[in-house]
Amino acid sequence: SEIFDKELYQDNKLAGVVTGLAWTSVGGEILFIESSLSKGKGKLTLSGQLGDVMKESAITALSYLRTQADELGIDHEVFDNYDLHVHVPAGAVPKDGPSAGITMLTSLASIYTQRKVKSRLAMTGEITLRGKVLPVGGIKEKILAAKRAGIKEIILSVKNRKDIEEIDERYIKGLTINYVEAVDEVLDIALLKDKVKKPMKFVIDKKG
Amino acid sequence: SEIFDKELYQDNKLAGVVTGLAWTSVGGEILFIESSLSKGKGKLTLSGQLGDVMKESAITALSYLRTQADELGIDHEVFDNYDLHVHVPAGAVPKDGPSAGITMLTSLASIYTQRKVKSRLAMTGEITLRGKVLPVGGIKEKILAAKRAGIKEIILSVKNRKDIEEIDERYIKGLTINYVEAVDEVLDIALLKDKVKKPMKFVIDKKG
Amino acid sequence: SEIFDKELYQDNKLAGVVTGLAWTSVGGEILFIESSLSKGKGKLTLSGQLGDVMKESAITALSYLRTQADELGIDHEVFDNYDLHVHVPAGAVPKDGPSAGITMLTSLASIYTQRKVKSRLAMTGEITLRGKVLPVGGIKEKILAAKRAGIKEIILSVKNRKDIEEIDERYIKGLTINYVEAVDEVLDIALLKDKVKKPMKFVIDKKG
Amino acid sequence: SEIFDKELYQDNKLAGVVTGLAWTSVGGEILFIESSLSKGKGKLTLSGQLGDVMKESAITALSYLRTQADELGIDHEVFDNYDLHVHVPAGAVPKDGPSAGITMLTSLASIYTQRKVKSRLAMTGEITLRGKVLPVGGIKEKILAAKRAGIKEIILSVKNRKDIEEIDERYIKGLTINYVEAVDEVLDIALLKDKVKKPMKFVIDKKG
Amino acid sequence: SEIFDKELYQDNKLAGVVTGLAWTSVGGEILFIESSLSKGKGKLTLSGQLGDVMKESAITALSYLRTQADELGIDHEVFDNYDLHVHVPAGAVPKDGPSAGITMLTSLASIYTQRKVKSRLAMTGEITLRGKVLPVGGIKEKILAAKRAGIKEIILSVKNRKDIEEIDERYIKGLTINYVEAVDEVLDIALLKDKVKKPMKFVIDKKG
Amino acid sequence: SEIFDKELYQDNKLAGVVTGLAWTSVGGEILFIESSLSKGKGKLTLSGQLGDVMKESAITALSYLRTQADELGIDHEVFDNYDLHVHVPAGAVPKDGPSAGITMLTSLASIYTQRKVKSRLAMTGEITLRGKVLPVGGIKEKILAAKRAGIKEIILSVKNRKDIEEIDERYIKGLTINYVEAVDEVLDIALLKDKVKKPMKFVIDKKG
Ligand SMILES: [Ca+2]
Ligand SMILES: [Ca+2]
Ligand SMILES: [Ca+2]
Ligand SMILES: [Ca+2]
Ligand SMILES: [Ca+2]
Ligand SMILES: [Ca+2]
Ligand SMILES: [Ca+2]
Ligand SMILES: [Ca+2]
Ligand SMILES: [Ca+2]
Ligand SMILES: [Ca+2]
Ligand SMILES: [Ca+2]
Ligand SMILES: [Ca+2]
Repeated sequence: SEIFDKELYQDNKLAGVVTGLAWTSVGGEILFIESSLSKGKGKLTLSGQLGDVMKESAITALSYLRTQADELGIDHEVFDNYDLHVHVPAGAVPKDGPSAGITMLTSLASIYTQRKVKSRLAMTGEITLRGKVLPVGGIKEKILAAKRAGIKEIILSVKNRKDIEEIDERYIKGLTINYVEAVDEVLDIALLKDKVKKPMKFVIDKKG
Repeated sequence: SEIFDKELYQDNKLAGVVTGLAWTSVGGEILFIESSLSKGKGKLTLSGQLGDVMKESAITALSYLRTQADELGIDHEVFDNYDLHVHVPAGAVPKDGPSAGITMLTSLASIYTQRKVKSRLAMTGEITLRGKVLPVGGIKEKILAAKRAGIKEIILSVKNRKDIEEIDERYIKGLTINYVEAVDEVLDIALLKDKVKKPMKFVIDKKG
Repeated sequence: SEIFDKELYQDNKLAGVVTGLAWTSVGGEILFIESSLSKGKGKLTLSGQLGDVMKESAITALSYLRTQADELGIDHEVFDNYDLHVHVPAGAVPKDGPSAGITMLTSLASIYTQRKVKSRLAMTGEITLRGKVLPVGGIKEKILAAKRAGIKEIILSVKNRKDIEEIDERYIKGLTINYVEAVDEVLDIALLKDKVKKPMKFVIDKKG
Repeated sequence: SEIFDKELYQDNKLAGVVTGLAWTSVGGEILFIESSLSKGKGKLTLSGQLGDVMKESAITALSYLRTQADELGIDHEVFDNYDLHVHVPAGAVPKDGPSAGITMLTSLASIYTQRKVKSRLAMTGEITLRGKVLPVGGIKEKILAAKRAGIKEIILSVKNRKDIEEIDERYIKGLTINYVEAVDEVLDIALLKDKVKKPMKFVIDKKG
Repeated sequence: SEIFDKELYQDNKLAGVVTGLAWTSVGGEILFIESSLSKGKGKLTLSGQLGDVMKESAITALSYLRTQADELGIDHEVFDNYDLHVHVPAGAVPKDGPSAGITMLTSLASIYTQRKVKSRLAMTGEITLRGKVLPVGGIKEKILAAKRAGIKEIILSVKNRKDIEEIDERYIKGLTINYVEAVDEVLDIALLKDKVKKPMKFVIDKKG
Repeated sequence: SEIFDKELYQDNKLAGVVTGLAWTSVGGEILFIESSLSKGKGKLTLSGQLGDVMKESAITALSYLRTQADELGIDHEVFDNYDLHVHVPAGAVPKDGPSAGITMLTSLASIYTQRKVKSRLAMTGEITLRGKVLPVGGIKEKILAAKRAGIKEIILSVKNRKDIEEIDERYIKGLTINYVEAVDEVLDIALLKDKVKKPMKFVIDKKG
């Protein structure tokens, strides 16, 4: 039985919701990263019983996104005029590790651009502050969990290619696997051109 | 004997008071979530010996509510011009877990809209940041406690339907059980159209 | 021998000083809640080696008072223009629990209204955020301590009536016991109409 | 041998320096409370390895002083325009307990009024927020230490009179002992009319 | 096998990325220091599971850089108008010690000047607040790791010269080793004259 | 072998660098206190793995200096317009105790006045908030370490004279030892009239 609820988000109607892959001693799981924005002063809230490494991962993802704001068409004033909340359900399950890095980055990019996230896509990989994607562990278990959950496409670090090559082919059949070196490739794959229906319209306070 | 006082709130005269269901090793209990607002700068205070997961649950409920302010007719300026306090009596009993999520959200929605909460209604369920309702444990014990306390109607996650189906029918007789997938359904059921008597009138500081 | 000094406040000359009842393994005691205000920015200071539950109790009392400011004739600007300090002597004795809730609320109401507190009155009871009064433990021991200290009148939750009924009548003789359900009844009994001699005159900074 | 240096302050040239009496398992000691003010925004700094109770005692003394500012001729703006530092040498010796309360209050009153402190005077007693003086322990040991240090006059709570009466008279001979109930009596005895030489001149920032 | 990824940064296209040398019980490793700036108010964020000593090292490096702003042609306003993030991948590996001091300083100098960092260069050394370079441990292991990673040039404290002289010459062959006494020598070697492609253009908020 | 680097600062070219004397179970050592200022808002940063007592000592030194600003010709606005960092290399060695008090004070006085510190001078002594100098331990070991490091002149509390008198004369030969009672005597000896080359020019933000 699954710890996390694989049916929670079956579509991609909401911005800021992205599917990640977790790995515990009893096997792989999918999980969801949820982000939301509301008028504020740029405060960041993290919830879902996240450990220190996972919190640093979210903070690093946000710093990276801020340096890429122009390239992604994000008005930089939005960062200081909206509060950001990143939550990982289920809320009582402790979670840690760096492997949700690219999932968090994609969630943030989606919520700030209001662009849709590709459906039936999952990803796992550490990010660095300057946008590299590092390999992570538990690839076999994560792939099996992704298939059980109906995922069709995966994003991994190129350095995890060798882990995939060790898995029996029938487990991977039907899955498209994208190997990436850098975060911009992740966003090229994961973020659709279209915005979600009724996208947020960001309002910036004029001072002075 | 009950830990919490089932007669504390027998009516729905006050905005921001909602009945939840708790579950300990010695059985189910009802509890109350109380919210209040007073002029301030948007500070959030949580009390009642709440554990980390329960605190995160309240914070997640508030973030969700902020994203739904327009839809609920809440002036967004109220969030920054009033301090919010959420308390769970009895104040010396430690409480934790995610299952008060929808109860907290309903309490917040009621206090910010000043709308009445349906009477003799109780609820239990985790919320997610984007408004999903997740199943929780202890359903049988909670149902028994609700009946003992005179509750007539319950809100649960659809994923808890199977737990209800395992309970002997005579325990459920007389109870209306609502199964929901998302938070907006909770509010459709729990919040009455009418405001409480002498509703608060929110005053917003004009700056500049 | 008493831990706390029962002769500390024999009169009601000062606003913000209220007599409570405590209960330890060696018996009941009276204690005093002291509040003071001084020009500031609304900071709250708690001292007297208070435990977490007792601190939350003070914070809950303050939130309740703020929601009742209009009804009590308190100018809401005072909360943000004066710093509040609540102290419980003796300063080295650790104290905890929710039972000083109504005593704290009365102390706050007195200091912000500058109204006198009824003399030879003591009280014990938990408050909730929306103004209910919950029962507390150690009633018999507290009643004995109150009598030893010369107290003539007591306020308790109605839910503590059964504890009083179990006490031998000669211990209660000469004591007036008030049973209340809600905080407004506490203030009706405890706060006199008269202000203290030389009441503070609150000065509000005009901004802009 | 003494832990603290009894010759550190042999005169009363500096405002804000007051002699207290401490008590450890190896006997009594004198100690000094030092206060200083410098232009700032009202920050309070405490140093000298003070325990929680002693820190609360300093904070309570400051709150009391603020409520008495008018009576002592202190311009209330000084509290927000100067930073206050209270230090207790020797800096590496841990110190705790409420008995330095009146010593701290006297130190604060002296530094804010720039009035001299009576020389060869020592004191020990807890203060309450509303200005009462509570008895403390170790009176005999403290009296012996005061005499060894050349102290001529002592201030104690009236409730410590019984402790003095149990001491052999030859130890007290030559010492003037003042018993007080309230803090204003302490200041009447301890603060001289004269200001120190070259008193600080407080400068208040005008805003607007 | 290496803990850190030696191929992560094979070129010097990005400002703020510098190669350091670490040393654990199982041998030497190279690591990368990454810095980034984004519009803000001068907040400093450190991530990568850094220990206290390593955090102090980053803070000391930043203080030194600020005192040298004029000499390096950095507009001092940038420090208060941009948030700085320093990250050390991999994010889950705990790291501590002072030996990344000069690497951090070089990373900061590069990101604030947008100048390129010399490629195939690595360094290890503690910095002091006034710009001295102190020797560090594990030199032999670090040199071996540098060679394995394709490093061609090293910067060390002059006080580490004796450690190099104890290493068999064939291990050092092909490596240029620079011995320095002070931080300005480090920057002379490590920072190229050229800026990176598309350098950040710093925008300063005008107040008033 | 020495823990700290006795050759680190052989001259007095930099303001804010002062030599202290430390004492561990394996003998005496010299250490350096480094201070630096950079444009800011008056923040104080302490680094070098300092313990609580040593941190309080730095804070006390700064408070004392602020009260003496006029006498030392320091513009008081500098304290609020520059950030101060005090560092004690080596950064990974834990350090504690009050004996660096006068060394820290001298370092601060030098950096704020930009005056040179006398060369080949070392000092050890606790300071009090009002400028007294208290004796410290390990005098013999510290003296031996000072001589090994080429120190020619020492500053001590007069209360440490007896410790010097117990040392065999040949160890002290060639050392000038200054005994002081108060901090102003320390500065009279340690601070030269001349400023360092290229002294900082302090720039004060005009508000309004
Ligand atoms: Ca990273
Ligand atoms: Ca691209
Ligand atoms: Ca959630
Ligand atoms: Ca609906
Ligand atoms: Ca309450
Ligand atoms: Ca009433
Ligand atoms: Ca007190
Ligand atoms: Ca008087
Ligand atoms: Ca340093
Ligand atoms: Ca140079
Ligand atoms: Ca001191
Ligand atoms: Ca002098």
